Amino acid sequence: MRILITGAAGMVGRKLIARLAKDGTLRGEKITALDLHDIVPPQAPAMDGVSVALHTGDLAEAGAAESLVVSRPDVVFHLAGIVSGEAEANFDLGYRVNLDGTRALFDAIRLAGFAPRVVFTSSIAVFGAPFPDVIPDEFHPTPLTSYGTQKQMSEALLADYSRRGFFDGIGIRLPTICVRPGKPNKAASGFFSGIIREPLSGQEAILPVPRSVVHTHASPRSAVSFLIHGAEIEGAAVGPRRNLTMPGVAVTVGEQIEALERVAGSQATSLIREVPDETIWAIVKGWPTRFEARRSRELGFSAEKSFDEIIRAHIEDELGGKIPGQ
Amino acid sequence: MRILITGAAGMVGRKLIARLAKDGTLRGEKITALDLHDIVPPQAPAMDGVSVALHTGDLAEAGAAESLVVSRPDVVFHLAGIVSGEAEANFDLGYRVNLDGTRALFDAIRLAGFAPRVVFTSSIAVFGAPFPDVIPDEFHPTPLTSYGTQKQMSEALLADYSRRGFFDGIGIRLPTICVRPGKPNKAASGFFSGIIREPLSGQEAILPVPRSVVHTHASPRSAVSFLIHGAEIEGAAVGPRRNLTMPGVAVTVGEQIEALERVAGSQATSLIREVPDETIWAIVKGWPTRFEARRSRELGFSAEKSFDEIIRAHIEDELGGKIPGQ
Repeated sequence: MRILITGAAGMVGRKLIARLAKDGTLRGEKITALDLHDIVPPQAPAMDGVSVALHTGDLAEAGAAESLVVSRPDVVFHLAGIVSGEAEANFDLGYRVNLDGTRALFDAIRLAGFAPRVVFTSSIAVFGAPFPDVIPDEFHPTPLTSYGTQKQMSEALLADYSRRGFFDGIGIRLPTICVRPGKPNKAASGFFSGIIREPLSGQEAILPVPRSVVHTHASPRSAVSFLIHGAEIEGAAVGPRRNLTMPGVAVTVGEQIEALERVAGSQATSLIREVPDETIWAIVKGWPTRFEARRSRELGFSAEKSFDEIIRAHIEDELGGKIPGQ
Repeated sequence: MRILITGAAGMVGRKLIARLAKDGTLRGEKITALDLHDIVPPQAPAMDGVSVALHTGDLAEAGAAESLVVSRPDVVFHLAGIVSGEAEANFDLGYRVNLDGTRALFDAIRLAGFAPRVVFTSSIAVFGAPFPDVIPDEFHPTPLTSYGTQKQMSEALLADYSRRGFFDGIGIRLPTICVRPGKPNKAASGFFSGIIREPLSGQEAILPVPRSVVHTHASPRSAVSFLIHGAEIEGAAVGPRRNLTMPGVAVTVGEQIEALERVAGSQATSLIREVPDETIWAIVKGWPTRFEARRSRELGFSAEKSFDEIIRAHIEDELGGKIPGQ
């Protein structure tokens, strides 16, 4: 089992690599080789008997994608991309990385003719307001960002290339990943993780929106499990509609905070300071709230059942299993 | 008023040019210049006081789109493309013409920075089975052809480029155009026009599917009126969802034939010979039947009210107003 991962230095990429290193197998086969690609050098995992090759560069550059697939991997996880804010700020770079890079990779696979499983991370950013309270699986994507547009176009390519048999693709529309590890960032969605992560580490966190805001979350651990299941599922069972909205936990911000209180007590929740920010709220109002995700659930994708579980996953995976100072 | 038309030598292009030549104006302004582009030389219309320039070439070729937009047209009708069967048979050519050509034109406009109205002909081929009996405006596109995929990707670009203000785009999803003038062709949809066109000219026509098959049609005249209305409508009224499914007449094949009998009598309908063809029927079964088209109707797009009207439009526009031999 040879595996290629693009975007291997990113948060989801690193967690996927750690999971593959722990499992040692994928689709019931022993992993023998890992090709890890990113624009910055990815970290090689310690895996006995696995040949790990590190690659850096720009997938959209002529020849880059071709050289990545000469090893004819059995499974390709295509996670590479620049984030929403960057793609909006830099029009050319967004289309180059998120669309042209994806197309170059897909075409390199097509021309090499080895038809691997391709698991692609798309995003709920393919949806744009207005939408119903619960977005059904058959709702049309009408992105309101260039990032969402690039994901939508890549999804369309993935479906067509799969239909033609060039590869066997699965597009994974990730919900908001929470609790995102690391430092606070300036993303408008940052507070969803911040109001959990910071209090668990004894730090104050700002809540800029009302507690009534509803949003759908999945843990980084679930994101990785979506990718693994996306690699293992039968393509024929998916049929021609290859892009799937993933399940998640839909909760209000108030319910997030109640879960934090149950898991970590009021000394944690007392660190959340409500500082309304009209700019952030205006952005958040345009985001989808809940998803039907019926097809993905039927196909065996699963996420946490409650926000308490999401918090516990963060404590286990990022804090060594215990809340600092408790 | 300067106008650029790509795909100017095609059936819809030629009819659009004839309509513009007749009107002499667009958006209430006198037409002063027409740039006509196609891969084969388009025909110049006779228009007093209008400077007509003919261009031939491949839009995806470096520099081709840039040189087309140096005249900074006020309105661009982007009709160029290869048809469904050809895009399916020739993968590279389909993506080159229908996606890369469109993106090259959109980017040339973006980089020239003159923000014209762009009217783009998309297609109901963006939809793929299974779908409900009536496809709502918010139904997701899941094309089952490379042609439909290329149209879907071009629609996504059009929406994003419009949102960013690079131009003011309207995507027109055409239903099946009926009665298509000219000779019978081998398209699986050919019989929808053939069973009307051939009998009206005293020729026999083959009906390969059951009379119960439902399909949505608009006349070539309506297709042109969609494009004109698409050029004249207020972009702000359309909002960010720039791709619109056009209205049409949804009828069974049996109702088409009844309309032919009302308009042209039983000497016409007696020329229709039912020769079931399982291959054609299998293709037709995968096509959408009816569309809600609520948004386009609300925005003032309109088609014929009945199939009788569609037949009469054909008689007026193609047969000089009378049925041969009657």
